[in-house]
Amino acid sequence: MAHAPGTMFELHPAFPATSEAVGDLPLCHARLQADARFAWLVLIPRVPGVRELDDLPVRDRAALVEEVVRAGAAVRAVGEALGRPIEKLNIGALGNVTPQLHVHIVGRRADDPAWPGPVWGFGTPQAYRLDAQDTALAAARTSLGL
Amino acid sequence: MAHAPGTMFELHPAFPATSEAVGDLPLCHARLQADARFAWLVLIPRVPGVRELDDLPVRDRAALVEEVVRAGAAVRAVGEALGRPIEKLNIGALGNVTPQLHVHIVGRRADDPAWPGPVWGFGTPQAYRLDAQDTALAAARTSLGL
Repeated sequence: MAHAPGTMFELHPAFPATSEAVGDLPLCHARLQADARFAWLVLIPRVPGVRELDDLPVRDRAALVEEVVRAGAAVRAVGEALGRPIEKLNIGALGNVTPQLHVHIVGRRADDPAWPGPVWGFGTPQAYRLDAQDTALAAARTSLGL
Repeated sequence: MAHAPGTMFELHPAFPATSEAVGDLPLCHARLQADARFAWLVLIPRVPGVRELDDLPVRDRAALVEEVVRAGAAVRAVGEALGRPIEKLNIGALGNVTPQLHVHIVGRRADDPAWPGPVWGFGTPQAYRLDAQDTALAAARTSLGL
């Protein structure tokens, strides 16, 4: 049987265009933002049709905040692996451009180009060198147990 | 007996300088950002010495996400009361400037001055007219049951 329309989780095409898959946690699909300026993960709850936090049931919201904490540890691990330890985490759920609910977990340093302002919409993303991207993905996966 | 240093919750002075008290939820102190451009609440967990989300215990994190949902409903109520219904909620925990853990819940509209970018660090806050601020505070308190 096919699923009814709208009942299957589908990733918005904006995510593959701007990030690399890290793997799946129990609730969320995790991705590494393709921007070497910042250690930056994105969590997308694998629940169809969700735009705002309160579109998720209470149980999923509690799971989401715990996966945000795990992603924060993974962002710190990425920063360490790249030789730029994280000084502050920034967490944001905006969705003004890409409506599918997603949470950004961004590692910040006082010497990063956007500090102390937010990263969203700031300047132009800088592609990772392939070896640095592999290092970042490996650090994120190890931290997340993936 | 005086409390030992660091064991009492104290509000960072940056909050009173930029926002008006709404009231206290079970975990968080809630404030209305003093910026008429956006329907905008700030939640500050009343826990001493907390800077990052993972400085809170798991139980408080689950409470926080539920208070963020309640604050989102209150932000929508503020938008309605001011005649500018909210189209999207933006949620952010940054803390690059003010280190005490706090969560912004911001009501966004496609016709607001920062859309679709983030509000943090955008332009200059615009003071509320006193009657509009009273309307916003009343709407927030009613929605939050305060």
